Amino acid sequence: MTPDTLTIPGYIIYREDANGSSPNETVIPKPPPHPLDQLTVEEIAASSKLIQKHALPQKVKFNCITLREPRKDEYQAFQAGSGPCPQRRSFAIVIEKGSGQVSEVIVNLTKGAVESKKNCTDVGPMLTLEDLDICERVSRADPQVAQVCREIGITDMDKVFFDGWAIGHDDRWGFERRLQQGLAYYRNSALDNQYAHPLDFTVIIDTEKEEVLAVDVRRVNGERVPPPLQEHNYLPQYIGDKYDQHRLKPIDIVQPQGVSFQMNGNEISWAGYKMHIGFNFREGIVLSDVRMHDMHENRERSLFNRISIVEMVVPYGNPTAPHQKKHAFDVGEYGTGLMTNSLKLGCDCKGAIHYLDAIMSISDGSPAVLKNAVCIHEEDNGLLYKHTDYRDGTVISARDRRLIISQIITAANYEYGFYHIFSLDGTYKLEVKLTGMLNTYCLHPSETAAPYGTEVARGLDAHNHQHIFSLRVDPAIDGPRNSVLEADALPSEFPVGSAENPFGNGFYSKSTLLEDARHGMRDYKHETSRSWAIVNPHRLNPSSKKPMSYKILNNNCPPLLAQPGGTIHSRAAFARHALWVLPYRDHEVFPAGDYVCQSTGMPGHVDNPTIEDWAARGGKIADADIVCYVQFGLTHFPRTEDFPVMPAEPVSVMLRASNFFVKNPALWVPPSTVSKDTTSRDAFPTSGDAAANNSSASCCSTGLVSSKL
Amino acid sequence: MTPDTLTIPGYIIYREDANGSSPNETVIPKPPPHPLDQLTVEEIAASSKLIQKHALPQKVKFNCITLREPRKDEYQAFQAGSGPCPQRRSFAIVIEKGSGQVSEVIVNLTKGAVESKKNCTDVGPMLTLEDLDICERVSRADPQVAQVCREIGITDMDKVFFDGWAIGHDDRWGFERRLQQGLAYYRNSALDNQYAHPLDFTVIIDTEKEEVLAVDVRRVNGERVPPPLQEHNYLPQYIGDKYDQHRLKPIDIVQPQGVSFQMNGNEISWAGYKMHIGFNFREGIVLSDVRMHDMHENRERSLFNRISIVEMVVPYGNPTAPHQKKHAFDVGEYGTGLMTNSLKLGCDCKGAIHYLDAIMSISDGSPAVLKNAVCIHEEDNGLLYKHTDYRDGTVISARDRRLIISQIITAANYEYGFYHIFSLDGTYKLEVKLTGMLNTYCLHPSETAAPYGTEVARGLDAHNHQHIFSLRVDPAIDGPRNSVLEADALPSEFPVGSAENPFGNGFYSKSTLLEDARHGMRDYKHETSRSWAIVNPHRLNPSSKKPMSYKILNNNCPPLLAQPGGTIHSRAAFARHALWVLPYRDHEVFPAGDYVCQSTGMPGHVDNPTIEDWAARGGKIADADIVCYVQFGLTHFPRTEDFPVMPAEPVSVMLRASNFFVKNPALWVPPSTVSKDTTSRDAFPTSGDAAANNSSASCCSTGLVSSKL
Repeated sequence: MTPDTLTIPGYIIYREDANGSSPNETVIPKPPPHPLDQLTVEEIAASSKLIQKHALPQKVKFNCITLREPRKDEYQAFQAGSGPCPQRRSFAIVIEKGSGQVSEVIVNLTKGAVESKKNCTDVGPMLTLEDLDICERVSRADPQVAQVCREIGITDMDKVFFDGWAIGHDDRWGFERRLQQGLAYYRNSALDNQYAHPLDFTVIIDTEKEEVLAVDVRRVNGERVPPPLQEHNYLPQYIGDKYDQHRLKPIDIVQPQGVSFQMNGNEISWAGYKMHIGFNFREGIVLSDVRMHDMHENRERSLFNRISIVEMVVPYGNPTAPHQKKHAFDVGEYGTGLMTNSLKLGCDCKGAIHYLDAIMSISDGSPAVLKNAVCIHEEDNGLLYKHTDYRDGTVISARDRRLIISQIITAANYEYGFYHIFSLDGTYKLEVKLTGMLNTYCLHPSETAAPYGTEVARGLDAHNHQHIFSLRVDPAIDGPRNSVLEADALPSEFPVGSAENPFGNGFYSKSTLLEDARHGMRDYKHETSRSWAIVNPHRLNPSSKKPMSYKILNNNCPPLLAQPGGTIHSRAAFARHALWVLPYRDHEVFPAGDYVCQSTGMPGHVDNPTIEDWAARGGKIADADIVCYVQFGLTHFPRTEDFPVMPAEPVSVMLRASNFFVKNPALWVPPSTVSKDTTSRDAFPTSGDAAANNSSASCCSTGLVSSKL
Repeated sequence: MTPDTLTIPGYIIYREDANGSSPNETVIPKPPPHPLDQLTVEEIAASSKLIQKHALPQKVKFNCITLREPRKDEYQAFQAGSGPCPQRRSFAIVIEKGSGQVSEVIVNLTKGAVESKKNCTDVGPMLTLEDLDICERVSRADPQVAQVCREIGITDMDKVFFDGWAIGHDDRWGFERRLQQGLAYYRNSALDNQYAHPLDFTVIIDTEKEEVLAVDVRRVNGERVPPPLQEHNYLPQYIGDKYDQHRLKPIDIVQPQGVSFQMNGNEISWAGYKMHIGFNFREGIVLSDVRMHDMHENRERSLFNRISIVEMVVPYGNPTAPHQKKHAFDVGEYGTGLMTNSLKLGCDCKGAIHYLDAIMSISDGSPAVLKNAVCIHEEDNGLLYKHTDYRDGTVISARDRRLIISQIITAANYEYGFYHIFSLDGTYKLEVKLTGMLNTYCLHPSETAAPYGTEVARGLDAHNHQHIFSLRVDPAIDGPRNSVLEADALPSEFPVGSAENPFGNGFYSKSTLLEDARHGMRDYKHETSRSWAIVNPHRLNPSSKKPMSYKILNNNCPPLLAQPGGTIHSRAAFARHALWVLPYRDHEVFPAGDYVCQSTGMPGHVDNPTIEDWAARGGKIADADIVCYVQFGLTHFPRTEDFPVMPAEPVSVMLRASNFFVKNPALWVPPSTVSKDTTSRDAFPTSGDAAANNSSASCCSTGLVSSKL
């Protein structure tokens, strides 16, 4: 196969050579080293060939070709050495050309055969980058669109741009069509910021038929809204001499001995942690088999089977049509894997960076490699710990370090940086940085942006919106069977003055076990600093006698502001709660459904259940193989400071060891500063002439001698 | 004067030379360059001489000698060029030897005279480091204490240590004595961790009389608690070969051209920001006159008159006596200035560091210099912004930077790092890192730590506790008169299906003006993602038409769990609410009172009002000169991971520009990556052969050429 770089920025497409193997021979490709490794270029090519052959005489368009992860039991048996290597499988969603029938196909790559094919009804496959491109191309060429533009004085259609968006839900059509809405913008010149010139109409297209179905013009008092033409730019071509090149002196971060992690294929080892780094078109980064060497128990301990961001929703809060259709599910409708930036186009981290490529597919079934999709690097993380004995100034301090596995995506106007962060005390933190461009809309002179938006520049309305992310954690807290305890900080139940609480200062953490998935959806409570401990009920900490656990710390979880009965509330059931706990089921991953485009979110969809269906099904979640869906994010009332390009805003959620380790797990980290040496270990500095003064410094670059009080 | 380094670790004491000036002559010292600069060594020496002379024939002990900051009106007139330089004054609290009378003395240094002296009744001055040292010395030498130790088998009193603590409140004595409680610990050897060996008694001492008043032994079922003797250490002498010297490769952070800030005395300029950095024995770092150059309005704009941490409380949650007395007010009872680490004893930041010294005083009135008390450095702060045009891969990204002004304190067992952080988008963040040692207590074999604590190692109970900090912000949001709007994110009030909210997605931010100090105490509300905007009602953002503001973002503000009617609830009124807004009054700073030691917190104390009194007094807080007290912190249920030394835990609060700047205020920051050059500004990449391909890279080190979809 020959790489071809001209189709999608950052992607290298591997197309079958003209003189390649004939379509009738499928060579069984060699599997990669690890069962959770992405499909290789060869595996994708083989899968598409097998599927195409199987579909004959029909022709299909590939919506995705991705790894079918092995079942948990077979994977774990293999990892434990008690089972064979799981057979290698791929999973594809295909759309039959002509009929539009959507099918799910599983190929057994080990056997070189299509293993199953399932037709799905009333489902909307994801919009790929190629699909989104259709929107702009078709809209720009449409005479009705041109007419609508002419009415507001725009004649050069090369200056009109369309961001393809999933339609949300539109009563006018059903699943017989793959719909998109095109949000229209204008540019004065090629690099002009189009979000300064939003136009007052939306184009609805049929992605498969490549035709415009409707042009929805929003008239105000029967009038068109004049296009805002004032420029608001941020590229160097426009800022020019406003850059101050001298204000900030360089900060160089260098690692003369290289990085502290080792890669074995896609498995990483760092500072006692080990995990596998996978990637797919939909979730982007997938971390599996996260485990840590415990210096105190001197053994490797499992933390998480699998961690990934499985959904997100960005509901906009302007109630006027057609804005209710703006509520992007960027994972399920577009794929955070597909939208990932190739970091060869500008690295966004400092220090020594290790990149991983993403291997995905395009609509004709060709493998597509996105170079440098995943960035792996380390950062200094400030103080790990410090203590000074104030009596004599004895001081010790050590520095923390963090490993960051990240990707950055571009979702039309917005960018999201996803940073999976591990630090030396055993903490996992998912930080998302939001940047890029506000989604804007044009205001009629008679309108105000308030209360549902902010006029960020004259005539430009940036609507209120939320960003709610769903982090799926498949825990393995020191073993396969876990429970979740809801922990609430409460004052003692005894009144002030009682024998049990005479001074009124008593407080404690009340734990409530979550027992069944029907009641496994929980909300944050500020009044009790609520958290949730994922515990292993079979492993008690020998000192605290509490079950060994990791706590979910999530106070950045705004309630979904869309109301029950409305479109968004129905479609984004997952976003109604900060936490859902469910029994684990193989291949049950996506809480807004496997098919989010055009979904209604109504419960009971046979081919497309959501987390609401899974929870209603119930099931034991105590001392069981469970999964946790953790929702977090923020509510964004746009500010003028967010325009024309937004300063990155971070938001995060954390999982932290709590009585999991018997002591501080990072005592192996050499301190950066110590002011004493071993000679003084046994001498008491109490006799006036301080023993400390006789000591010489050890382990530190600054030779310090402390004096005594 | 000659420096003397032997009294307190890290401090250099300047004592009058034997052949110095006679006590009857006071030379008027030259003032430092800025009216808010700390008192100089000479100013402290002059103040103490003047005060001692004024007190004759009585002799006094100095509790503090510090800058009396000028009144706001006179300072601002001077800064505006419309008034003279304010006269230089010092403020001292002195304790008359013998009588114990506490007085506040103001010295006019410009005139070389004591200007006022006020006697205070029923107040407890702060415990200085020297006072705390008395506790250990006196307790160790006391025969009754020795007897109590012998009862549990301890005969070598050199191995018994006492952490001096403020007493909280003890009914047995009033303000006729300056009380301390000594928490008792044992060490097997000089560097052994005493917090592994807490003893079962507390010593109450009189600080002035230097005598033991009581030894309170906590018996369980009439029995003594055996001392836990198992060692739990973390110093290198004990960890030894468990350090892994090879796991982490060095990360070097270097600034070959030096730092990006300039110091003019104690004024700093950095990236458009300017401010004055002060320091005092009680608050530690004080930032004044914080302002920023606005590239869009091309003028300097005021943000805050003054920022500092004015109080904190650490209430412990074990209701059994004597633990109710453990609730340290580290600012008001001990002084976060006094407890500051000299960072020459181990730098805790990387890169190019600039230090400032602190200048304080000791009990005999001598000046004491703490070298390297304040650390000033810059850090790379990841992405400032990024955007990619997905059509052609045009990418721009810039890196953020932050300025950090920090100090680290040791409060007996605990350490707190206070980091005042400014970033390029105009955000101020106060981050506190908590590390050091858990406060521990010994368990009787019949007891369990739960529910009020965690047994972090056999027989060692670490009690539940909270850390609640009070950040005082004296705002000057683009001018002297500000208001505060409480902002709540709410669903549209119109029901789903109504004409105003047909799809149920409408939501908005409801603003409520705080008008009077009587109602200026507010709580956080998770359900509405509540925030507070400090606005300038006279300055409307020309685009958004909203008042220019800085928002207080504070969702890390646990409610005070101590109950009304109890000691802690009374003493820590400030901690009852996340926010208090009050009219500004000169020298009204400390919300738990100027005198926190032994205070009851009862309203109406003439010489020692608290924030509860100030709020009850009422007063206009809309369009007024206001101050905001922002409480934040965390509730800590100790984990075994926190033992024997705690991994640093960060907690923070943020003030962020919101419609304050008309655009992103950091557009002057040169991007680190751009993939296009100016030649393509006008060429539309729509004609198949992408204009982008003809461009060469600019402004970036990686010469990138992007391809077209």
